[in-house]
Formats: sequence, C-alpha cells, structure tokens
Amino acid sequence: MNKIRIGIVGYGNVGKGVETAIRQNADTELIAVFTRRNPESIVTKTPGVKVVDIKDAAKFKNDIDVMILCGGSATDLPKQGSEFAAMFNIIDSFDTHAKIPEYFENVNNAAAASNKTAVISVGWDPGLFSMMRMLSSAILPEGNDYTFWGKGVSQGHSDAVRRVSGVKNAIQYTVPIDGAVESVRNGKNPELSIRQKHLRECFVVAEEGADRAKIEADIKSMPNYFADYETVVHFVSEEELKSNHSKMPHGGFVFRSGKTGIDTVNNHIIEFSIKLDSNPEFTANVLVAYARAAARLNSEGSYGAKTVLDVPLSYLSTKSHADLIKGFL
Amino acid sequence: MNKIRIGIVGYGNVGKGVETAIRQNADTELIAVFTRRNPESIVTKTPGVKVVDIKDAAKFKNDIDVMILCGGSATDLPKQGSEFAAMFNIIDSFDTHAKIPEYFENVNNAAAASNKTAVISVGWDPGLFSMMRMLSSAILPEGNDYTFWGKGVSQGHSDAVRRVSGVKNAIQYTVPIDGAVESVRNGKNPELSIRQKHLRECFVVAEEGADRAKIEADIKSMPNYFADYETVVHFVSEEELKSNHSKMPHGGFVFRSGKTGIDTVNNHIIEFSIKLDSNPEFTANVLVAYARAAARLNSEGSYGAKTVLDVPLSYLSTKSHADLIKGFL
Repeated sequence: MNKIRIGIVGYGNVGKGVETAIRQNADTELIAVFTRRNPESIVTKTPGVKVVDIKDAAKFKNDIDVMILCGGSATDLPKQGSEFAAMFNIIDSFDTHAKIPEYFENVNNAAAASNKTAVISVGWDPGLFSMMRMLSSAILPEGNDYTFWGKGVSQGHSDAVRRVSGVKNAIQYTVPIDGAVESVRNGKNPELSIRQKHLRECFVVAEEGADRAKIEADIKSMPNYFADYETVVHFVSEEELKSNHSKMPHGGFVFRSGKTGIDTVNNHIIEFSIKLDSNPEFTANVLVAYARAAARLNSEGSYGAKTVLDVPLSYLSTKSHADLIKGFL
Repeated sequence: MNKIRIGIVGYGNVGKGVETAIRQNADTELIAVFTRRNPESIVTKTPGVKVVDIKDAAKFKNDIDVMILCGGSATDLPKQGSEFAAMFNIIDSFDTHAKIPEYFENVNNAAAASNKTAVISVGWDPGLFSMMRMLSSAILPEGNDYTFWGKGVSQGHSDAVRRVSGVKNAIQYTVPIDGAVESVRNGKNPELSIRQKHLRECFVVAEEGADRAKIEADIKSMPNYFADYETVVHFVSEEELKSNHSKMPHGGFVFRSGKTGIDTVNNHIIEFSIKLDSNPEFTANVLVAYARAAARLNSEGSYGAKTVLDVPLSYLSTKSHADLIKGFL
C-alpha cells in the first residue's frame, strides 16, 4: 500500500505537531515542509525531509497527496486556502468562526475547479466541538447548548496583555467557572452571562519600576478582551513565567442538555470534553486523521470543500470496514 | 417539503419513545405502529396512527419511508432485520456486539438486493459510544480506551436476579466506580480489572419467609453476572421498589487517553459521557435522527447496510449545509 504523502505549510507549533503526528500514523509520510522563512534556517526533526520556499510549492504537485496548511487564520489562510486548494488536496484549521462561510465558498470554488478535495476548519473548535454540537442537537432537538473553553492559554488575550504599557511579558489563561459547568452537568439548564461562564487569569511580568496597580487596572478595563469578565492578575518574575507557564495546555467542554418524553419531563445530558497537555500537538493529530480522509475522498472523486460534518467517521481510520465494525461497534 | 413517513415495529419502551421523538422532529410523521400483539389492544398517543398486525407490514411498502425496528436483539431483530430491509429502509438498535458482523452481512444483502438503506446498531452503545471510540482512537493512535456504563438499570442483570429462588422482584444497577473513572480522567492510564471498573447494586423484594442470607449469597456467586464483581444487595419492599426504582435511567463514559509529541510526553484526554433520565427515550431520539439520514441516503442511491461510522453527521440534521456551517462550525 502506498503511503499518503503529506506536505506541511508553515513550520510553527502546529506544523511541528503535524510532523510528530505523522510518526504515529504508519500510513502517512512527510515529504516536505514549505516555509516563508529562509529554508536553510529550518531544521526538521525528520531525516530526509525537504524544506522548501513556499513560492516553489507548485513544483510538488505530483509528489504530495495532501497539503496540511498550518498558518494562522488572520492573514495566512485567507490567502493560502484557495491558492493551495487549486493545486493540492488540503486540510486546514481556519478558525475565524464568523468568516467560515465565506472561506468555505472560496476554497470550494478553487478545489472543485481542479478536482481537489479540501477539508476546512479542522481541529477541536471548530472541529470536534462543532461535531458534538451538531450531533447532540440533532439527537435532542429540544434543549440547550453550552460550550466552555479551557483551562488553557489564549494567544489573542496573552498578546493583548503584552500590549499594555509597563508589561514585559504575559500569559493569559481562559478558565471555565466550575460552578457553571456543574450547574449545566446537573441538568439545571442555567442562563449564563459571559462573566458567569469563564474567568480570565493573567500571569504578568512587569517592567522594572512599572506601576503595577495601573497595569492591573488597564488589563481589567480592556474592552472586548477583559472588561466583561472576572479577571485575576498575578505578577510573576520572568523565570517563573518561563518555568511554570511555557506549556500550551488547553481544553474545554461541550454540553447538550435536552428533554424528551410525552410531557418532556425526562432530561438528558450529553457531555464532550478534552483536556490537552499540548493544544498544537492535539490539533495536529486531528489534522492528520482528516488528511487520511481527504486522500480517500479525492480518490473516490469527491471534490470541493468539506467540513468535519460532511466526512463519515470511518474515513478517519486506517482500519477496514469489517475491522471497524468488529473493533468499535 | 414532504415529511419523512415513519413506521414503528414493536410498541415497547423504545417504540413508545420513537413515537414521542417524532413529535420533536417536525420533518417526520408517524404513519403506523406494527405489532405482534392484538392491534386492538394497543392505544397509541398519536391521533390517527394505525396499529397494524406485523404480518400485514408488506402492504405499507409505499406508505412508509423508514421503518424503525424497536424489537429486541435476542430473537426479534435477527429475524426482522433482513425481512424488513427487503421491503423498507430501516433503522435498528441491534446490540449484541459479538454478532454485529454477521447481522450487518445479512441486512446488507437484503437491503442491497432491493435498493433499500439500512442503518444498523444505532443507539448509544453500540452507536454514539462506538463513534467516540473510533473517532478518538483515529485522533490519538497511541493511547488507551476506556468505556464505563451507568449508573443505570441493566435489564439482563435484573432478570438474572429475578430468577433467584426466593426473589419476588428486583432491579439491578450497573455503577461505574468513581475512583476508576477519576484515575482515567486524570491521565493515569490505569490497567483496570472487571471488578475495578463497575460495581453491581441490587434492590431485591424477597418473598415472604424467604432466606435473605441465602438469596444474597446466591446472587453474589452467580457466574458471569455477579461473581466477578463487587455486588451490593439491598432488600426493599415492593412499594419502595415501585416508587424509587421504576425509572429507566442510564449513562456512561467513553475515554481515550493518548500521548503525542516527539518523546510522546504530552497526554491528552478525550471524554464523552451521557446521563439519561430515560434510556429508551434517549435511544429512540437517536433512532429518529438516523431515520432522517436513512431517508436521505436512500434518495441519493446509497443502498445496503450502514453503521453510524458510515454516515456523515450532517445527514442527521434538518438544517441546510450553509446553516450547519453558520450554526455549528
């Protein structure tokens, strides 16, 4: 059996995670990493893998079955998505929720025109969490959805804290509020405000001589990012930040709480949760499973853009249909 | 838009649950209930629904889009599955895990020969739990699976207790052991024996003058059912059994605990759980969502037997593709 030949576009945390994920999936192999940086500045962990200037990607059209786009959603993917889908089967983790419909349309046009298959917005949210929200609301049409994120590092919020005057470095954790999670889990169907669902915890390294009270006030009053939340600010040393807060854990919960029965008196809770030591590595593992699906969909003539909602779960597995039935049903 | 016309075969707890589930799904309508009992002895909760002798089902070939088989896996479905799949699109909840491959084969042959679509073994285990086991092991190829059932009533074990001499009535709950669940949730990847995962709790009404110590010993030593477990026996009155133990709650947990990274040092936990006030009603709601999928698969010419692993999630929803992207991704 031929291995699925994979290319990585963008060698950041997720790109590196895809590289290690490929080692766990014996039916896949890494062919090349594509980068905007100087290729000679990058040393991969996989012997024999080419590092190529992203401008030369087109030359690999016949050598790569699926290109995994590991760039960011703000500026990289809006450009790369349709560009690469015109040349390759692609997987990406485009996660700007509000712009997914437009992104889907663009990638779909490019992929369909060149008989390629693109699975977009793959990861855990959007991704696994989307699947759980959709599945559970189809099963329990009368009910409420709840999504909680964390405990985990939010890059956007960490960046926002770092922009505050007097802040040298910072990490922000999004923390789901236990009481709210428990209330949902116990079928109370609460109405929860933004403030009641998550709190924001910041670990801040202040510049020498900076006014800590002002930093704290500036963070807590920042609109959109913090003003609507309970925010806790801890001042720590640079060493403490490095030794205790340099990992990238994350996680979250998706709940559906719904009722059934002739008088809808019976309550049911569906709960899905993840607890991740490394957000980028887990995301990368999801991407590689969907790369397998993209290769298979394309070989069956199923072209254009897809989402996680469109792909049968069996396409993510290396196992035969008979083994899936025996092993999992 | 035409509604999906549904027939129910077998009007027990699950059949009644399907009837109420149909009320929650505006794109479905109940046409008839098919029974082996005297049709006149059955009063449905839905006005205008026919109650028909199961022998006359063939007459409804043109009136029903999907037949939902609500009989048992021991004797009903092995016979009904292929018989009905030769005439109708069907959904069933065949749950004898070891016999699913053979059952799939038989139903597939019948359905494929008559251009019908059958989704078999739908429910929560097999069903949702199967999906979670497969999905999470595709994402985390290096890891361990854990399934816990309960707290919930096991009919098979309740029946076994009722057969013990001196027992008038009884209910058995399967209870996952908290410490074991917590250990898995915390990424300890424990090896768990049967006894360490679940305990069995029995509520027993003894016949007057019966030897309670002997009943308890007989239950606890019963091979296959109880001997391998920690078993707790409570003696209660008939009234207490009726008022406190006549509901049919159930639930359970599926975990995948897996590692990623260059030295596989990062651990990830995927957890899926359900907590159900009514096992048959929840199962029925899953069946109805898959009835929608079966109707659509059939209209697209996708014939034969399928499992939950073969059906894209989007097929379970009434929403358009654009609305699914907007609402769930």
